[in-house]
Amino acid sequence: VFDSGLGGLTVVRALERELPAECLVYFGDTARLPYGNKSKVTVERLSLEALRFLSHFEIKALVVACNSASARALDVLQAEAPFPVLGVVEAGAARAAAATRNGRVGVIGTRATVRSGCYERALAARREGLRVIAEACPLFVPLVEEGWIDHEVTRAVARHYLEPLRAGGVDTCILGCTHYPLLGEVIGEVLGGGVTLIDSGESVAAEVAGVLGDRGLRARAPAPGHRYRFFVSDQPEQFAAQGARFLSHALVQEVRVVDQSAVPWYDRWAGRDAVPGEEQR
Amino acid sequence: VFDSGLGGLTVVRALERELPAECLVYFGDTARLPYGNKSKVTVERLSLEALRFLSHFEIKALVVACNSASARALDVLQAEAPFPVLGVVEAGAARAAAATRNGRVGVIGTRATVRSGCYERALAARREGLRVIAEACPLFVPLVEEGWIDHEVTRAVARHYLEPLRAGGVDTCILGCTHYPLLGEVIGEVLGGGVTLIDSGESVAAEVAGVLGDRGLRARAPAPGHRYRFFVSDQPEQFAAQGARFLSHALVQEVRVVDQSAVPWYDRWAGRDAVPGEEQR
Repeated sequence: VFDSGLGGLTVVRALERELPAECLVYFGDTARLPYGNKSKVTVERLSLEALRFLSHFEIKALVVACNSASARALDVLQAEAPFPVLGVVEAGAARAAAATRNGRVGVIGTRATVRSGCYERALAARREGLRVIAEACPLFVPLVEEGWIDHEVTRAVARHYLEPLRAGGVDTCILGCTHYPLLGEVIGEVLGGGVTLIDSGESVAAEVAGVLGDRGLRARAPAPGHRYRFFVSDQPEQFAAQGARFLSHALVQEVRVVDQSAVPWYDRWAGRDAVPGEEQR
Repeated sequence: VFDSGLGGLTVVRALERELPAECLVYFGDTARLPYGNKSKVTVERLSLEALRFLSHFEIKALVVACNSASARALDVLQAEAPFPVLGVVEAGAARAAAATRNGRVGVIGTRATVRSGCYERALAARREGLRVIAEACPLFVPLVEEGWIDHEVTRAVARHYLEPLRAGGVDTCILGCTHYPLLGEVIGEVLGGGVTLIDSGESVAAEVAGVLGDRGLRARAPAPGHRYRFFVSDQPEQFAAQGARFLSHALVQEVRVVDQSAVPWYDRWAGRDAVPGEEQR
């Protein structure tokens, strides 16, 4: 499982329920998060680095828990990886397309996810004629990280962001960011009781089970030494502590830091009037 | 000038007013921002990388515009650099210590800045017996980046964060983050008219002028080819566009990307049960 930080633990929780016998290796890029406000080239580069790191663990499949990375880098990851790479976008879109009754689907996510138009495309591929209302909610992640889950400010922000979805009469809303399930109550309250909230983490876990089953790769029982391993690029203590908010029990026993130093980009300057390797994006 | 992103442009604005004849090279680490929620080791590493990059430009002095980097990495930068390295923390503290009449100083900043206790130490070194009330305001940066400068939600968040400062009767408040001057109006409104807001950018610009003057390094007139050069690690277009919000005129003409790829950290895994170079922090 790859995520920009710890939001992917909502996906881990779903995977644990769906596939309890599987081992799991997690990489959270906490030194460089968030991905939601970064460019496509940068998200692709960071995602390929994560793929190369996780490839060392002989994984059977890679789950991209980060919506921004799923939206912007899934194709390059799939082109590079010799195993299945599953993103939360396709999985969430499939479930939403099946769930909506009136054909009006809301999508909320980071600016990068919403701008990419990935959910619109995925929904259109699953079912024709859906009306999609997508809104970026950039303040939701900082509000979750601030712990303002049940807070008047969070309700005011949610009312502001979700008004177009409410006005558009959506009956289904994709929570297009791993942090958003934690705001499920507030979001549900603002959108009204009849709206189905789609947690992409649950959707992708079901899809992983299907893919592994199809290929005869599903573990029947936990192997000896079965465990979950967590790697982060910064702040393992915070990851372990905040992990409790995401995982229902103390699953986060082993959290280690992956050092990202010895980065030579700054040394490639050769005193000339251009930075070698520099690109106009 | 080094900053984690574009907030340092408030410092550039102050430097331009104070030292109009000097050339300027700016590096904003937009691919890895924000620094405010990252660990000391990581902020040190990223800061040293920025120092090494900017050293290629034969600079006379380095201004660390980022409060989180000033708070956590100034000492390692000063130990490494053969030229003066000035941070916003010392400069802002000096001005606040001189400005307060009742000896009660408020400090607001990111969680990293506030946790470091850097302003308390700098203030105590300047003047004994000051009472300091420091509060982290993690939502202010995302609110500025969302453009909610004059917004009811921003006012509610400010009332929440600033209540301890108001209750403590501070008459001076250090804006300990480069984004905060943009919220100056709301912050002033919440704290009340009698409170002096200290913009660390202005303070550090005056200090740079002093240091260059003392060493006889001040430019008397703009040299031929005088210019401002901006380098970012991601999203130059966004930097140029948002720069207009920070700089009073179109100073941001040249914005280039510094490529940070070819990062070998992910390849140092050797198939063993530990990640070489990995550290328990």
